[in-house]
Amino acid sequence: MICENIGVNEKGHLTLAGFDTVELAQKYGTPLYLMDEDRIRHNCRVYKTAMLDGFGVGSYPSYAGKAACFKRIYEIMREEEMSVDLVSPGEIYTAYKAGFPMENAFFHGNNKTDADITFAMDCGVGFIVIDGMDELMAVQNIAKDRGLRQSVLLRLTPGIDPHTYEAVATGKVDSKFGVAIETGQAEGFVAAALACDSLNIMGYHCHVGSQVFDDSDSVYLDSADVMLTFAKKMQEKWGFAPKIFDIGGGYGVRYTEADPTVDIAASIRKVADHIRRLCDEKCLPMPNVIMEPGRSIVADAGMTLYTAGTVKEIIGYKNYLSVDGGMTDNPRYALYGSEYTVYIANKMARKADFLCDLVGRCCESGDIIQPGVTVPMPVRGDTVAVCTTGAYNYSMASNYNRVARPPVVMLSGWADYVAVRRETLEDLLLNDL
Amino acid sequence: MICENIGVNEKGHLTLAGFDTVELAQKYGTPLYLMDEDRIRHNCRVYKTAMLDGFGVGSYPSYAGKAACFKRIYEIMREEEMSVDLVSPGEIYTAYKAGFPMENAFFHGNNKTDADITFAMDCGVGFIVIDGMDELMAVQNIAKDRGLRQSVLLRLTPGIDPHTYEAVATGKVDSKFGVAIETGQAEGFVAAALACDSLNIMGYHCHVGSQVFDDSDSVYLDSADVMLTFAKKMQEKWGFAPKIFDIGGGYGVRYTEADPTVDIAASIRKVADHIRRLCDEKCLPMPNVIMEPGRSIVADAGMTLYTAGTVKEIIGYKNYLSVDGGMTDNPRYALYGSEYTVYIANKMARKADFLCDLVGRCCESGDIIQPGVTVPMPVRGDTVAVCTTGAYNYSMASNYNRVARPPVVMLSGWADYVAVRRETLEDLLLNDL
Repeated sequence: MICENIGVNEKGHLTLAGFDTVELAQKYGTPLYLMDEDRIRHNCRVYKTAMLDGFGVGSYPSYAGKAACFKRIYEIMREEEMSVDLVSPGEIYTAYKAGFPMENAFFHGNNKTDADITFAMDCGVGFIVIDGMDELMAVQNIAKDRGLRQSVLLRLTPGIDPHTYEAVATGKVDSKFGVAIETGQAEGFVAAALACDSLNIMGYHCHVGSQVFDDSDSVYLDSADVMLTFAKKMQEKWGFAPKIFDIGGGYGVRYTEADPTVDIAASIRKVADHIRRLCDEKCLPMPNVIMEPGRSIVADAGMTLYTAGTVKEIIGYKNYLSVDGGMTDNPRYALYGSEYTVYIANKMARKADFLCDLVGRCCESGDIIQPGVTVPMPVRGDTVAVCTTGAYNYSMASNYNRVARPPVVMLSGWADYVAVRRETLEDLLLNDL
Repeated sequence: MICENIGVNEKGHLTLAGFDTVELAQKYGTPLYLMDEDRIRHNCRVYKTAMLDGFGVGSYPSYAGKAACFKRIYEIMREEEMSVDLVSPGEIYTAYKAGFPMENAFFHGNNKTDADITFAMDCGVGFIVIDGMDELMAVQNIAKDRGLRQSVLLRLTPGIDPHTYEAVATGKVDSKFGVAIETGQAEGFVAAALACDSLNIMGYHCHVGSQVFDDSDSVYLDSADVMLTFAKKMQEKWGFAPKIFDIGGGYGVRYTEADPTVDIAASIRKVADHIRRLCDEKCLPMPNVIMEPGRSIVADAGMTLYTAGTVKEIIGYKNYLSVDGGMTDNPRYALYGSEYTVYIANKMARKADFLCDLVGRCCESGDIIQPGVTVPMPVRGDTVAVCTTGAYNYSMASNYNRVARPPVVMLSGWADYVAVRRETLEDLLLNDL
């Protein structure tokens, strides 16, 4: 199995966190998002321990909430004493309403409006990650008006191509995010920031992409080289050394058997050793280091259950298995060609010999969840499971085709419970006047 | 201008349906979807008149609601005496609540559950378009249980490649939709349907894709050839001739100046002449013909307004203009690489000489609305307009990054009014327990 929380029970049913997924599908209906709460907590602890062991006290992971954002997630993050990354007023409000301690939150984004910045300060967000020069001025002015001194990080682009896929490649110079070191623009950005009397410049941020595997983890080392060389230059020029160095990112998640398993602790230790050596060489004080896992905190905690509908065999062409969800609850294949592992949850003991495209119920040919999957011969009513859907599924869901969004059911050691309820037909009309 | 409802007023501001878009942005805030109600009505009438003129009484267009689905749209469709295509319980419910006469509705989809079919019958949907053999049995059984005789169409795949883009190509044999003629499977499908005593088999349906321009409009002629040849064979074999022939689709919409303008009336006349000739040749009774425009009813009625935020010039690389929306309200570039025409609404008299990528506010590099647009030099606060967003924008919108969905404001001859209200932060938490 691609993750240790997935198994098969004596009935030949797929299990997640020990729960019988066929029974969960019957209990809650489909489509259904499942989230293994204990796995989320486990993943948080792996990162927390690794960051502490590698970098020492004051270094920690910050959960990137855009991967999966709803109230219950922030309660778990609070309980696990995680920091969080937030990217919009909606995410800020969700964390705030969940009672998350906002001083441990970072507000990110390439285009924060004045209203967004004001709202973040209203909610007491600890750190604003400033993306560019005009945002710097906006944050300075709003903080000054409120008579406060806002802690901020400065987002820079080190010019590293992460070799992950395009849509998560954000550390390149050609990016909507951050200010480029290579072009010389970052120098003026730092100088301007240091002159802002209502800002507390805590350090630098960069993000070279997520879904980083061992064979590409040199992106963290390479970006540390660029960032700390720049930091040294700024220290010499303006006397500023970062207290915080946020290296962004997060390690890869296994979507299929072909994906490797990352030893997160070992990988972080490697990065820590590298950064410590760099700081020693450059006579820079060792900063507190922050990493921003999102996907790798929640992805393998998740699974989506569907009910099989039409099974279509086109003689001489291809087979299609249609389910009662699709690109509305998981647009990742449509957007990125993402890979997933698929099972027939009630037929785990049967031989998988039926090759088909797993497709959704939307009136659109592009509504494909995963092409070319091999499963036991399905029939209408079977429970279809798509694994590793904890990240960027619920958070990216739409009401396209006026399809209601599924609920999120959490599984913990003691119980299953609804964290996000299923949308109703009435909900779909809520904004229609 | 790409559509006659777009103009520039004496202030140098972009107008839609004669309304000053800069004033609308100020009045309603941004991001903002605008819809020109009169244009929607105009487009309906073009199709209705062309279908009547071309095919005669009993032939008509059916609006494909998935392009833009909210209550007000169905009120307009009712007033324009249009039929509608619905693809889910959510769309059925929306039309029903809008007071749409459900006997004029067609229920489509590749994977209707028993619950969906039951709901459609509860709401009195006029026609169910049956997608395959097991759905045929499901509809027959549910209709029988209810003691009614349900009118249905049979969806077939004529095997025509529409030469439009992949995601709207649905008439090929290799499709999740319909039953293939080429493989011989359609024959058994028709035979089985004719044996169903609770179904009233009204005819055939096919859909070879939308966004069809003049240079590709032979897809309608080619698919009519295949479909009517098949119909003749079925008449000879089982004595069944279709009363209705639903040819699906819809004509192309201009997204950019490079797109041609389609003469819909002339195109439909060409299809009508062809079908009439085929029926004559084959001694088939001329069926009533239905066409299913969605995009071409609403796309050019729509425009999205944003406020410019970060303007980023990366020396030696590229420029980025960030706005306060993005792939959350318009995922079509991210999904399909779709093209759009972009203006700075408050600078229509200025020279367009700033080349940039128009990007959204999401924390994702793939959040691009349109790359490589040339606009007058923008500054924070400018009003940015993206044209032709009436189709597959609001209907595909998500809350990714926990971003609230924009409102839909309708413009008619006499007034502007809200049809769908803006989501609030509270709305985003509505389902969180």
